[in-house]
Amino acid sequence: MTIPEEIDTPEIMIDRDVLKRNIDRMASAVRAKGLQLRPHVKTHKVPEIAELQLAAGAVGLTVATLGEAEIFAEHGAKDIFIAYPLWVGPRQAERLRRLAETTRIAVGVDSREAAETMAASLGDAVGEVEVLLEIDSGHHRSGIAPDATVDVARAVSRAGLRVTGVFTFPGHSYAPGMPLKAADDERLALSQASDLLSAAGFHLAHRSGGSTPTAALTGQSVATEIRPGVYVFGDAQQLELERCTAEDIALTIAATVVSRHEGNDVIPRRVILDSGSKILGGDRPSWTTGFGRLLDHPEARITGLSEHHATVVWPAEATLPALGDRLRVVPNHVCVAINLVDEVTVISGGEIVDRWRVAARGRNR
Amino acid sequence: MTIPEEIDTPEIMIDRDVLKRNIDRMASAVRAKGLQLRPHVKTHKVPEIAELQLAAGAVGLTVATLGEAEIFAEHGAKDIFIAYPLWVGPRQAERLRRLAETTRIAVGVDSREAAETMAASLGDAVGEVEVLLEIDSGHHRSGIAPDATVDVARAVSRAGLRVTGVFTFPGHSYAPGMPLKAADDERLALSQASDLLSAAGFHLAHRSGGSTPTAALTGQSVATEIRPGVYVFGDAQQLELERCTAEDIALTIAATVVSRHEGNDVIPRRVILDSGSKILGGDRPSWTTGFGRLLDHPEARITGLSEHHATVVWPAEATLPALGDRLRVVPNHVCVAINLVDEVTVISGGEIVDRWRVAARGRNR
Repeated sequence: MTIPEEIDTPEIMIDRDVLKRNIDRMASAVRAKGLQLRPHVKTHKVPEIAELQLAAGAVGLTVATLGEAEIFAEHGAKDIFIAYPLWVGPRQAERLRRLAETTRIAVGVDSREAAETMAASLGDAVGEVEVLLEIDSGHHRSGIAPDATVDVARAVSRAGLRVTGVFTFPGHSYAPGMPLKAADDERLALSQASDLLSAAGFHLAHRSGGSTPTAALTGQSVATEIRPGVYVFGDAQQLELERCTAEDIALTIAATVVSRHEGNDVIPRRVILDSGSKILGGDRPSWTTGFGRLLDHPEARITGLSEHHATVVWPAEATLPALGDRLRVVPNHVCVAINLVDEVTVISGGEIVDRWRVAARGRNR
Repeated sequence: MTIPEEIDTPEIMIDRDVLKRNIDRMASAVRAKGLQLRPHVKTHKVPEIAELQLAAGAVGLTVATLGEAEIFAEHGAKDIFIAYPLWVGPRQAERLRRLAETTRIAVGVDSREAAETMAASLGDAVGEVEVLLEIDSGHHRSGIAPDATVDVARAVSRAGLRVTGVFTFPGHSYAPGMPLKAADDERLALSQASDLLSAAGFHLAHRSGGSTPTAALTGQSVATEIRPGVYVFGDAQQLELERCTAEDIALTIAATVVSRHEGNDVIPRRVILDSGSKILGGDRPSWTTGFGRLLDHPEARITGLSEHHATVVWPAEATLPALGDRLRVVPNHVCVAINLVDEVTVISGGEIVDRWRVAARGRNR
């Protein structure tokens, strides 16, 4: 694809045709497994994309913060899960109460203390917010060990909150060779927690798992729903984990070659693009090949990233792009890239067809 | 310092007293060396802070993009250097022309092609924009090798642009043991390029260097000015490079303990804070101890960062913070952290005294 002439760089471009195909494919795949889809919209933060996901059959949305929940509720979402162990004081409780006036709202909890604080802050509104207990399925970030779930569930109930489910995030799926193991761990942890809670008399309407790397691997599980996010766009991490192909990449950054060096024995042969960490994001897990990929030049490597410079090393046998050339860059982690801009350019058939506001950008709390 | 009760987390707090002290100290140190100070305002993107820097004697501002230049010019800046090898087509030329109506404006160039394109795009306005040639002093990002400078300078002049100086960024100073070597490299590269250009008949009013790590080491050089940025706030990288102390940190992120785990033989003893990469930024050079530091707990290590979670591992001998505790986090790279929020809270004497808009946030082009 040629980058439309009207675009000044660096700029985030979304290919609407690829986006829609990604949304439809995930919706069909999840439906075929008999699961529900509750996509994580922190990936895109764009109400127009959430609408496409809901139209394709998503049962509701997943968000990470109260602020994101508020934006999507304002845009009409009726069923939102904040998949995060929120610490709910009086100000957060007031916001939850207001959300609950228009939306089914569920919140993650992974401790007795958080539940008691939330319940005290909610006061009379304690019944209006559902709780899903967060289970640690091996990522060892937040979450309760599966065998400790019943104790926490009882404390949450005693505090007056309704436990309606469990959830986990198998985040250790983000590394080569890990998606299958992470999907297994997730299955096991959800089963163990669900069995123990059922035996203790809890009815779990929601058993929620999933990440983009494990989405295709989830199945034969006690899960009722999955919460992938990145699948809408794909990114360089998913490419390098072989969880998507170059044809599935819906979001790229248009960038210009601003500096060019043939190099020598000491200094690398390289071009500098104007797509630095302030538009690509700085994520660079050790297993990735660089700070992102060039969509049309798989042979190139982004070896360095400063705020406004991407250093792209080029192999000796390939022609170095010219100064002023415009290239498409795929960020390593698409969720943090789109969070750096207020608007994105929407492309279809190689033409600019729309501009979308990243309405929930920066809603960190 | 206790985090003021009114603050919801995660939130960026700026200690105005420390900020002013940092600004005054750098201004005095640079003055004492007989140099001029042209601070890089991409670090903060806040007009109120630029005003403090100019009031303390800065001769002008450095920015990275046209968009940043426009914001600071709107706020009254009269002397702006875009320290970046801009690729200037017709739309960029029109913006430069408009800037030049109210502001002295200089732009970086590191190739004949960029100069010719800029000159053609500027047309009649070619004389209104000054050019500083970018020299590669060892960072091997953009920039001309010192011994190739004269050729490029002649091409720039032939294109009709005015070469008024040279600049370099010794970015390889950002690693342990490197600041001194980088300051030496910078001195050498600026001298070599300046000598060659002078011998070729170019008069260089501006010989510009400097980064925060090398600022204190610059001297006995041909430089006329330096362009540090990070010194206003300090950050975890500067702390770990021993270029500032904990007392110099003016920007912290207020964060809440949302999950807490005593750990066991397999699973680390840790707390999870709500300050993820969407407020800390994802920068994590290999030589740093983690994804940032806790200002009041130097013993803790931020071992993992997702978008809304910081995993903080705590040593066995220290008390693990309680759920709901609020801690101050220092980002690794302060320039990318402040670029993630639209507003910051300003503190003085432990009280909230102001809110500042990050007016140039996201102005990537």
